[in-house]
Amino acid sequence: MSSGAPPLALHPDARALEFLLGTWVGEGQGHYPTIATFGYREEARFWHVGKPFLAYSQRTWALDDGRPLHSETGYWRPKPDGVVELVIAIPTGHVEVDEGTLHGTTLVLSSRLVGATSTAKTVTGVTRQLEVDGDVLRYVVSMAAVGEPLQEHLTAELRRAP
Amino acid sequence: MSSGAPPLALHPDARALEFLLGTWVGEGQGHYPTIATFGYREEARFWHVGKPFLAYSQRTWALDDGRPLHSETGYWRPKPDGVVELVIAIPTGHVEVDEGTLHGTTLVLSSRLVGATSTAKTVTGVTRQLEVDGDVLRYVVSMAAVGEPLQEHLTAELRRAP
Repeated sequence: MSSGAPPLALHPDARALEFLLGTWVGEGQGHYPTIATFGYREEARFWHVGKPFLAYSQRTWALDDGRPLHSETGYWRPKPDGVVELVIAIPTGHVEVDEGTLHGTTLVLSSRLVGATSTAKTVTGVTRQLEVDGDVLRYVVSMAAVGEPLQEHLTAELRRAP
Repeated sequence: MSSGAPPLALHPDARALEFLLGTWVGEGQGHYPTIATFGYREEARFWHVGKPFLAYSQRTWALDDGRPLHSETGYWRPKPDGVVELVIAIPTGHVEVDEGTLHGTTLVLSSRLVGATSTAKTVTGVTRQLEVDGDVLRYVVSMAAVGEPLQEHLTAELRRAP
């Protein structure tokens, strides 16, 4: 959305996550004991609005037939001493409050809270590791859900779109 | 974000909220015992990706100097029997899981859960009433926060952008 105003400078408190800004595209794989393993194409976007956080949105599509799969959206909040907070909404009926730390350009977060609507599946914990190496972004999402213990669920490698 | 595929038809389960689709612009007012009353300009957008929910994002700017104020993003999930679930992330460090019902084109939701990061202000409850009358969308958001009981916080009237 346009603000109707000139572009805003990156907020000083958001500089710690400046390396995430932009659009990233690539592929990932999902697996979990309760589902068939699947491949996906992903587009993730990080942007700022001049305030001390980054906005975030991503979508994925099935590699086999291109149907839309997952999406999520939220905000990354860098705090002093390398602390990073993340709030996310997911159309599966979930919200996450994740917290963790930034080391260089690697983020390691775990859920402080996973909330769910009445009709959503039970998710009891999530961890997210995300690292940027130049123009490559890799992440691993682990999840404890539907009675299964915390385990790797998603891995992906994205490249910064020109 | 583009899917790289032809436009998708609205999912049948999302039709109940079809009246929300589009971009809405207008003005609102915020008030709360702990802050000075303020006016804002808002742009809200509801769209779909062919799945049984609507994606949602909004931003507001101060009426006095145009600085960016609030933003939030999430997903509206219509369910059988007029039930609607809403999951939202807010860059103040909050997430909401709201649930309620749709009557005609009026939604009345209340929070099942408000989650917060370690550094966010305490919010204990939110209600959202939203109604669409032709090309006019009005909403009222009430909030219980920072020790204050649930009370009206935001009112706005938006018009559908051409």
